[in-house]
Amino acid sequence: MQHEEIKKHMKTARALVEEAGKISLDYFRKPQAVEDKMPGVFYDPVTEADKKIEEKLRKELSTQFPGYSILGEEYGSEGDSNLRWIIDPIDGTRAFISGVASWGVLLGLTDGDTCLGGIMHQPFLKESFVADDQEAWLHNTDGETRLQSRQDAILEDAVIYCTHPYLFGSEKERCGFQNISAKCRMQRFGGDCYSYALLAHGCVDLVVEGLLQSYDIVPLIPIITQSGGIITNLDGDPPMNGGTIIAAANESLHAHAMEIMQEELNK
Amino acid sequence: MQHEEIKKHMKTARALVEEAGKISLDYFRKPQAVEDKMPGVFYDPVTEADKKIEEKLRKELSTQFPGYSILGEEYGSEGDSNLRWIIDPIDGTRAFISGVASWGVLLGLTDGDTCLGGIMHQPFLKESFVADDQEAWLHNTDGETRLQSRQDAILEDAVIYCTHPYLFGSEKERCGFQNISAKCRMQRFGGDCYSYALLAHGCVDLVVEGLLQSYDIVPLIPIITQSGGIITNLDGDPPMNGGTIIAAANESLHAHAMEIMQEELNK
Repeated sequence: MQHEEIKKHMKTARALVEEAGKISLDYFRKPQAVEDKMPGVFYDPVTEADKKIEEKLRKELSTQFPGYSILGEEYGSEGDSNLRWIIDPIDGTRAFISGVASWGVLLGLTDGDTCLGGIMHQPFLKESFVADDQEAWLHNTDGETRLQSRQDAILEDAVIYCTHPYLFGSEKERCGFQNISAKCRMQRFGGDCYSYALLAHGCVDLVVEGLLQSYDIVPLIPIITQSGGIITNLDGDPPMNGGTIIAAANESLHAHAMEIMQEELNK
Repeated sequence: MQHEEIKKHMKTARALVEEAGKISLDYFRKPQAVEDKMPGVFYDPVTEADKKIEEKLRKELSTQFPGYSILGEEYGSEGDSNLRWIIDPIDGTRAFISGVASWGVLLGLTDGDTCLGGIMHQPFLKESFVADDQEAWLHNTDGETRLQSRQDAILEDAVIYCTHPYLFGSEKERCGFQNISAKCRMQRFGGDCYSYALLAHGCVDLVVEGLLQSYDIVPLIPIITQSGGIITNLDGDPPMNGGTIIAAANESLHAHAMEIMQEELNK
């Protein structure tokens, strides 16, 4: 797909996400039923807002882009086109149910293994972080800002985020994260999809976390890469399938963090 | 001081905080110089925004309330009146410098050991959580909402927050926090002063953290208590001097959390 066409797709998609995202505000910071999707295994909350947003997005995307396949967190996969919309109706459901505004509505567009564009919309803050195949922008009530990650960030001066210290698939990965953090200026937990948006915005320099599903991360990949950052899995590949990721504001910071992680994994 | 007079004080104070808070937006999510107040000891960041906000608040409070003493994070204590304004110009400086909107401008009014009122203002979200000696309110762009903590929250269903897992004065306290968390429905890090505001709002049920200074917590005490919550130090007293605190949405939840913490401390 050509750039101009991708740009047009993302413009339409942003309007759909911003409209569907309004549903969340009927539930946010109000008493609401929370269902546990994995009772007895681990706490995996889902709300009526998650379901309603995904339903609305699926319906609108099917109308606007007939024939495209869709993958969403709550209702799985439909269609077999290479062109695919990827939906996480509320990324950061734990933040959502505790009233913290670090969750977002995620929508990505992929062509096979290539990310063409992505959106992270925060309905409460009225902010949309949007990327196509060339540029990444923040759209909010102040207007539009071109996103650029910190090109000169080095490890010793870096701000590193992770949503929760136990968000790793193994003890070795958690140690690797700690070893990277120990060399950074500052480490914080909490953040959800906002950590990645703020990396693109030049406020956060590293995000390292694991146990991600593809819909958690694919829509954020173009936002990071088009702002000048880099995001890979632990094999150094684009994290199209989720898993454990290292996102960094620039290539040399990414290489440095990867080296520390690999050292721990190879012990 | 009588209720009507306290109410009037807090109305004036809120206007001052909201005006001074605007200074923060000249710096938030923009490249800014960050100074380390404790180099070589631990990372204790302070920004020009912290200093300018406190300077402005001190100046305005001295004009509007001559003779009252003032305690602030950046410029210490002045005056010896029992009536005292307590300022934390930016609580959550780590969040502030990483672009996350969980920081706030805090201002409290005390008469000796009694908290008369408190304010937590979030300039980016345009939200003010305000309490006097009888009521707690959220003022935002939607209007005013009376704050009420979850009176029926029990430990097994509770959402517990702490700003960072290492925000404790001892390993025993950290273990006590973990033992409490293990019995809760959900535990999250990050949050800063917003955790307390959201406890008052009925979204978070427990906040347990340590190493607090008086200005970090005193302005938040009336917001919690006037919303129906309870906050104490580990001796069960109001945390006028900071330290380690347990804040809870109701008395029985507080008692339950205190019991688990004390069990660990007495081991």
